[in-house]
Amino acid sequence: MARKTQEKREDLKQRLIEAARNRIAADGLSNLRARDVTQDVGCALGGLYTVFADLDDLVIHVNSATLKGLEASLALAEVKDHTPTDRLRNLARGYLRFAVAHRNLWKALFDHRPPDNRPSPEWHLEEHMFLMGVIAEPLAELQPTMSETARAIRARTLFGAVHGVVSISLEGRFVGLPIESLEQELDDFILTVAAGAAARQV
Amino acid sequence: MARKTQEKREDLKQRLIEAARNRIAADGLSNLRARDVTQDVGCALGGLYTVFADLDDLVIHVNSATLKGLEASLALAEVKDHTPTDRLRNLARGYLRFAVAHRNLWKALFDHRPPDNRPSPEWHLEEHMFLMGVIAEPLAELQPTMSETARAIRARTLFGAVHGVVSISLEGRFVGLPIESLEQELDDFILTVAAGAAARQV
Repeated sequence: MARKTQEKREDLKQRLIEAARNRIAADGLSNLRARDVTQDVGCALGGLYTVFADLDDLVIHVNSATLKGLEASLALAEVKDHTPTDRLRNLARGYLRFAVAHRNLWKALFDHRPPDNRPSPEWHLEEHMFLMGVIAEPLAELQPTMSETARAIRARTLFGAVHGVVSISLEGRFVGLPIESLEQELDDFILTVAAGAAARQV
Repeated sequence: MARKTQEKREDLKQRLIEAARNRIAADGLSNLRARDVTQDVGCALGGLYTVFADLDDLVIHVNSATLKGLEASLALAEVKDHTPTDRLRNLARGYLRFAVAHRNLWKALFDHRPPDNRPSPEWHLEEHMFLMGVIAEPLAELQPTMSETARAIRARTLFGAVHGVVSISLEGRFVGLPIESLEQELDDFILTVAAGAAARQV
């Protein structure tokens, strides 16, 4: 019996994540309401709180699924034998394409702020760090003498830079790039950064 | 008499901009209320609408003042004889310092969305473009054979990249840089981009 209850809980949890994911994808994180999500899966409002601490906890699970989708979009296995520069280009292109294809889910990764008294759990922060590791790895080949700590920081810088170019353009804020030239320009930007990293290594 | 009325209008306008600026600096754009601003200057709520189309119009005037403050923070005259790389480093440092010192006003530049039926006026968009021109100018020295159009796009890319590194770190979203290493890391990033631009030029 205990196993059956556990299975039911897990099933409800997955259905709520899926419903929240669909709601965020369609209407954006700021329009997410617990009542809509529970109605979508056909459970009582209170049902959500038997499997998640609160709506923020549910959003973290959606963001976790989004990060897994992003990872798949980066096509890491396909380019593993390429040059480090080409692997960085591939990362930037995969990131841009994922952001374009899943705009609202991608925005939710950045727009969600967990409440101050309950920061994001460790397992979720480790999912963020996985992405940084994926960037640090080709950097290590471009600048082999850099310390591991410095490289981890450099990976965050490069992520922030690519994210900045993508987000300021997609969101149409301030003076972003025209969308038509975004992929080409981002690619050229990575080529410049990689050439700079190699040149400074010498 | 007409001149006196005009002077009074201009005076009210300036006082409303100043009050809105103080409110945004203290409490952020999302907490700006027309009622608070008019109370601060001691005029009726309707007074605001005799000199501005609406609250968005007032925010655009505050953002315009913020851009002038940012321009001053970039200390362009002081470095005009420096190398292009050093001028780019100076721009990034000035941008970061301004963002740190005027967090809410800086955020308002990006968070403000004018209503769809009344986009930002041309004179304000030109103020944005001025910043891009300031970035394009050292780029022209690093990559003299690049076309003017390509360079204008590259300036936007570089702005987006620097803004991304600064904002993801200052806002504490996702995996930004620790604030202590931000200025050093941003500087190193610009050195890498400049070295890459020069290397690809050869």
